[in-house]
Amino acid sequence: MSSMKKIIECVPNFSEGRHPQHIEKIVEPFRAKKGVRLLDYQTDEDHNRMVVTVVGEPAALKAAVIEAVGRAIDVIDMRTHRGQHPRMGAADVVPFIPIKNIDMQETVAFSRKVAREAAQKYSLPVFLYEKSASRPERQNLADIRKGQFEGMAAKIKQPQWKPDFGPAKIHPSAGVTAMGARMPLVAYNVNLDSRSLEIADEIAKKVRHVSGGLRYCKAIGIELKDRGSVQVSMNMTDYTQTALYRAFELIKVEARRYGINVIGSEIVGLVPMEALVDTAAYYLGLEGFSNEQVLETRIWE
Amino acid sequence: MSSMKKIIECVPNFSEGRHPQHIEKIVEPFRAKKGVRLLDYQTDEDHNRMVVTVVGEPAALKAAVIEAVGRAIDVIDMRTHRGQHPRMGAADVVPFIPIKNIDMQETVAFSRKVAREAAQKYSLPVFLYEKSASRPERQNLADIRKGQFEGMAAKIKQPQWKPDFGPAKIHPSAGVTAMGARMPLVAYNVNLDSRSLEIADEIAKKVRHVSGGLRYCKAIGIELKDRGSVQVSMNMTDYTQTALYRAFELIKVEARRYGINVIGSEIVGLVPMEALVDTAAYYLGLEGFSNEQVLETRIWE
Repeated sequence: MSSMKKIIECVPNFSEGRHPQHIEKIVEPFRAKKGVRLLDYQTDEDHNRMVVTVVGEPAALKAAVIEAVGRAIDVIDMRTHRGQHPRMGAADVVPFIPIKNIDMQETVAFSRKVAREAAQKYSLPVFLYEKSASRPERQNLADIRKGQFEGMAAKIKQPQWKPDFGPAKIHPSAGVTAMGARMPLVAYNVNLDSRSLEIADEIAKKVRHVSGGLRYCKAIGIELKDRGSVQVSMNMTDYTQTALYRAFELIKVEARRYGINVIGSEIVGLVPMEALVDTAAYYLGLEGFSNEQVLETRIWE
Repeated sequence: MSSMKKIIECVPNFSEGRHPQHIEKIVEPFRAKKGVRLLDYQTDEDHNRMVVTVVGEPAALKAAVIEAVGRAIDVIDMRTHRGQHPRMGAADVVPFIPIKNIDMQETVAFSRKVAREAAQKYSLPVFLYEKSASRPERQNLADIRKGQFEGMAAKIKQPQWKPDFGPAKIHPSAGVTAMGARMPLVAYNVNLDSRSLEIADEIAKKVRHVSGGLRYCKAIGIELKDRGSVQVSMNMTDYTQTALYRAFELIKVEARRYGINVIGSEIVGLVPMEALVDTAAYYLGLEGFSNEQVLETRIWE
């Protein structure tokens, strides 16, 4: 029965997905460390990239992340790195997510501390992104990463792309890194009783933010060849503002136009409890419900 | 970040709700004890009764519960006890609920150990009830408690009411106790846009088990005078078998007969996360969802 510890999640992406010894070296600082817990890591050979999921208390997490960034700089050489996924550095992007007893503002401050320390320690240019961004054009990772590692040496010399911390030139072998605080992402897919990828894409366009849909929703149509059906595949980028059920119900509404039905949905990977509690509360019309009524939150607070 | 500790909840009911010093004496064994956490306690002067909610690891919880039962025997005299709520002993009923890393079977075994030890230590007759019951007619607490403290001296002498542990005669001042394992109760109320208590009662009859409704649902109609409306007030006695959404949807169906609408619902007190996850999964048609995808379960496992 633990206390009111602050918990932050970190989901760093490293540009290494092929060499087991290198992968283990990078992950190792997250193992068997007090105050830090490695939840998962996944590697992709085609992307030549790995995604680590780790949670921890701020001080311990900061130390472990900075150590892992150092390991990535040691074992990865971006000058010879090849992979399908866009990338700009050995430690490509390091997002921090507030989980428990900590708010976004404090997580932004935390991300700045980690960025400053890592930049100093490794002479690494670091860009702050998402909620930590120092200017609007740096909020989206894709804008920072445009040009990738190969274009970064020239890009970083432009005044508007001076990094937030570290030197205004790339690390010769490790490139540059983006760090910042963001909300948890929920990977949420809605399945349609149709074989038409075109229709799935049309519906995706209607629900996603960029083309007039929901503010915190990214969406594309996907073909499920095994099932002979299609789905709207979404990233819900702030479930506290754009609820899962809203996307689900809106897709039902849009599907009607094509005379097709929603046959179900799926959550890929982890989802914060609050997103599901909110969904239950909506459909049951729950009045005055508080997350503290969930038994588990009382036990593991 | 704790380990795979077994966690049991205990919600003992003691026949004391009027004297603060006595109340504090009974609660005290649950305070500031390693491996045990007092979540809540509520007293009722009219009922002259208190309900404690505590969670803990088996060994520590057993010790604390046995100590608290001893305190109740010390400070309560059933011969002079008056209160509106039915009761048969100082420690009237002691339910145990499996919460984490423990199943019902193991919780039943645990309840038997606590019952045996308390019976020996205090020469207290203890009846096993609910999932721990030694015979079907002892499953329902109301059947065991029938006759209350005043009738128990005679009842306990009948062979079919020989207690499971302890002497076959009541404790002179503390009566008898029921102990056993059960599922978590969820207090769940559905609000109707009607002022008719009669209609709320009619609908309650249709959804509750005893009169032909859902297996793990108890229900009555209740008048909400302040709001000028009525509700179906339910105890969901096994949400893993009778889901909350099933009761909610069934009440909607039944309400149609009277031309009235369901305007919302409410959960009173604590609810296990799984009950809400299950509700969200139903309404979103979630495929292949596992509780382990809830971020919090990974952090506080």
